Formats: sequence, C-alpha cells, structure tokens
Amino acid sequence: MSAEFAPAAPGKRRVLITLTYDGTAYAGWQRQKNGLAVQEVLEKALQKALGARTPITGASRTDAGVHALGQAAHFDTDAQIPPDKYPFVFNALLPSDIRVLTGRAVPPDFHARFSAIGKRYAYRVHNAPTASALLRNMSAHVPQRLDIQAMRAACETLPGTHDFAAFQAAGGTAKTTVRTLSAATLCLSGQDVLLRVEGDAFLYNMVRIIAGTLIDIGKGKRGADAFEAAFRTLSRLSLGATAPARGLLLDAVHYPGFSTNAAPF
Amino acid sequence: MSAEFAPAAPGKRRVLITLTYDGTAYAGWQRQKNGLAVQEVLEKALQKALGARTPITGASRTDAGVHALGQAAHFDTDAQIPPDKYPFVFNALLPSDIRVLTGRAVPPDFHARFSAIGKRYAYRVHNAPTASALLRNMSAHVPQRLDIQAMRAACETLPGTHDFAAFQAAGGTAKTTVRTLSAATLCLSGQDVLLRVEGDAFLYNMVRIIAGTLIDIGKGKRGADAFEAAFRTLSRLSLGATAPARGLLLDAVHYPGFSTNAAPF
Repeated sequence: MSAEFAPAAPGKRRVLITLTYDGTAYAGWQRQKNGLAVQEVLEKALQKALGARTPITGASRTDAGVHALGQAAHFDTDAQIPPDKYPFVFNALLPSDIRVLTGRAVPPDFHARFSAIGKRYAYRVHNAPTASALLRNMSAHVPQRLDIQAMRAACETLPGTHDFAAFQAAGGTAKTTVRTLSAATLCLSGQDVLLRVEGDAFLYNMVRIIAGTLIDIGKGKRGADAFEAAFRTLSRLSLGATAPARGLLLDAVHYPGFSTNAAPF
Repeated sequence: MSAEFAPAAPGKRRVLITLTYDGTAYAGWQRQKNGLAVQEVLEKALQKALGARTPITGASRTDAGVHALGQAAHFDTDAQIPPDKYPFVFNALLPSDIRVLTGRAVPPDFHARFSAIGKRYAYRVHNAPTASALLRNMSAHVPQRLDIQAMRAACETLPGTHDFAAFQAAGGTAKTTVRTLSAATLCLSGQDVLLRVEGDAFLYNMVRIIAGTLIDIGKGKRGADAFEAAFRTLSRLSLGATAPARGLLLDAVHYPGFSTNAAPF
C-alpha cells in the first residue's frame, strides 16, 4: 500500500488540519516540479516545526490559481503537540496567503480525501463593464449583461444523481462519472454573481465547466437546458468552455459529523 | 490661483473619471517622492495616451494601502476623445489593480474634490481566530470576539452635526472640524464586520479612528458612549487607536445629481 493510502503507523497520531489560501501565487495544491505548490509550502513549514519530513495529504487537489476557504489535509506524527495548537505552529512559519484554521486528532484510518462525503465550491463572476481591481484574482470577468433568470433555471436542472461524463476535462481519471449534486444556486452580491455547488464528489474541472456553461447560458449562447442535454449526450461539446481558475474557491469539505467550513462563502 | 484650483482653460474640456483600485501596492493617492502613487500611475498612462503631460486631481487623497471602489478625479484636455471612451484609453495602459470605470464631461469649474457634497467609506474587520488569507490586504484582523451590540449602539451616536476635533490625526489641516455624518452602520458578512460611514466630508484618518474606537468598544475596552464623550472633550485621547489602512475603502463620492458608486460595497 502506498504511503498516501496507508493508515497511521503504530505510535503515530493522525492530525487533520483545515486551511484557507489565496491560490494566486501557487501552482495548485499538489507538489510538482514546475512552480511552488501549497502542499510543498505546508510540508516545509511542518518539517521546520517538527524537525522531521512529514508528508501532508490534501482533501482536494485544487488547480493553479484556485483558492480555498475550507481545504483539509492530514499528516501523521509522533510529535506531542496538542492537535488544536497546529494553527499556531503552522501560521508562525507560513506566508500570509496560507493560513491554517484548525487542527484535530482523527482515527488512524481517517483520510482527508477518501473520508470526505461531500464538498462545496463557489465560483465568482464579476458581471460589470470593467474587470474588478479589488477581486481581480478571485473572479472571472464577464462584461456582457447576464440573464440571471436563465442561469437560475439551468442551475435547477443540476441537483440529483447524473452521469457527469460530459463535465470532465481531458486528464480526468475517475473510474465512474456518476455523481450526486445536492445543490447548485446563484446569488447576487453587488456586481458579482456567485455560484455555489455542493455534491458528494467532483470530476476534474467539473465546477469550472459548470460555471463556463452557465456564463454561456447567461449570454444567450446556450439554452437553459444545456445541462440536461449533456446528461443525455454525455458529450463535452454539449457544454461551454472551462471558466478561469481564479474564480473558483473550495469552500468546504464535509466529513461524517463535521464540515471544514460551516458558513458558506 | 494654483493650477489645482483653476477652472479649465478656454478650449479645454474638463473630464471626470471614476475609478477603483487595490491600494496594496501603492503609496496612496497623491504623487510623492517616496513610493509609487495611484495619481502618478494614472498621469503616466494619460500622458502616454494623449502625448501631453496632463495633471489629474483626485476627490480623496487616500493613504498608502487604502482601497477605492468609487474614487473620482478630473483633468483638462483638448484631446477630442469622447469622455465615455476614457475607461478604454486608461485601462489599456494601466496595471490590473487600477481600473477606470466611467468618464464624463463636466463644467469647467467642476472640481473632483471641492464639488463633492458627500463621501461613503467602508471599513472591514475580519473577526475570527485566524487572519484571512483571501482578504488579508483588505481587512484588519481582530481575533477577540467582538460585542456587535455595543458597537452598533456606539454607531447610533455618530450621525448628526458634531465637532469631530477629537477624530483627527496629527497632520490634519482642516480649518473647521465640524462635520455632518448622515449614517454609520455595521453589517455582518460571514466572519467579517463591515462598517459603513457616510458624511459630507471627513477629517484626516477620521474613519480609521472611528473604526479603531469601535474595535475597542467591541472588545469591551471602551464604553459605547466613547464617541459622545469625544464630542464633549474634543480630545483624541477619548478615542481608540487609528485602525490599519488596509481595512479602509473609499466606497463612493457624491456630487450634486450623481454618485460615483450607487451600490454600497
């Protein structure tokens, strides 16, 4: 069994942290050769704090430029630090665009990714003639006036158990493409349109494809039945472009009995 | 009469632009020797576009780190560009943390600062155990739980015409310190407390002193009658510290007949 899947070794405690980050400066969650990943920054901070290399496994492998308010990650350690002190341990060593919010002990076979029973994402569109200066790294810009009614009608067709095969970017590796969405809602905040999507699990780029399709629907380039058509055709061509990463935020990860972020963004 | 106060010369048109900026990277609005000012970046862009040095006068001289959603500024030009095209002219040459939103022709004696009849500011406090990673440059962080009821009671004592002499940082040059506030409200947004203050004019650092005092009141370090006491004593010592610049946003400037930003932040 690879280390990533194994339970905590005897004598080691498994700790789950929740964290938030501004993904603008990072090449995504996962450690990689080109560019600095959030995982790498966290692992370096933890190594400095504990004096031992300690791999950290995340709940969601967010892409470059994607943000998080309620990411979760676990690691195993024999350090005697009380788990609720890890925010102080990490934050003293992390840059200000990554903050650890909570720490707790979890059972040895708890897994940040595989124990998750749901996730909530938010996608922000700045719908105004000019791009936002203030939230330029946290929103996609759409200058054309969007038809919110049509976008809301389309959102209503998303919840339920469907084959989301059409909602997957090339490079997805999921064994099954059947997923259950529990909610998809639009809320207006000033000149921003905020999409919130909640479900049991998500395919690669699924939320950004939903957002890109909703933008097309809002512009009148696709009908409000586009998602229903995609459930039938299972074709990526039934849907719009993948919306920019910077508009996406991992809002919460749900586990049995608790959630990383109770209050929606 | 200094150029800053003079009406537009014959043959020149006076143009008023509205603009938004993320003040994080700038040494404030006003051109200065140490550090890059927003005014300087705008003047350089305009000089590039028009081929002539063209001074720009702002409505509010925001401090270093302070943001704007509805700043206004005027300049005089003989260029034949239709005023409503200036957002395109500027934005093609500006960095993405400064965006010009609108442009309009105004009378030759209209003045971005002296024609203003009111302003609205917003101040954001992130009230949570850990600082915000996402809005770290747009909020002050207060980890202690704030007593919102007490802060709201104090806000209710602010509107009206008062002598705000106590609400002024050293360096203020106002001839009179009597000002009229029309509104001071607190609104909760997730873990953020958003203060909105509206009035005819503001003294130097006045909103940041109000915010700092409200934070003290929320922590229980001062009573909800602190503002009333300051109106009596006229002493800066009756009030709290000046809250950090990064939490402050110039939301709107009001002129007779129009406002730079109709929707509050």
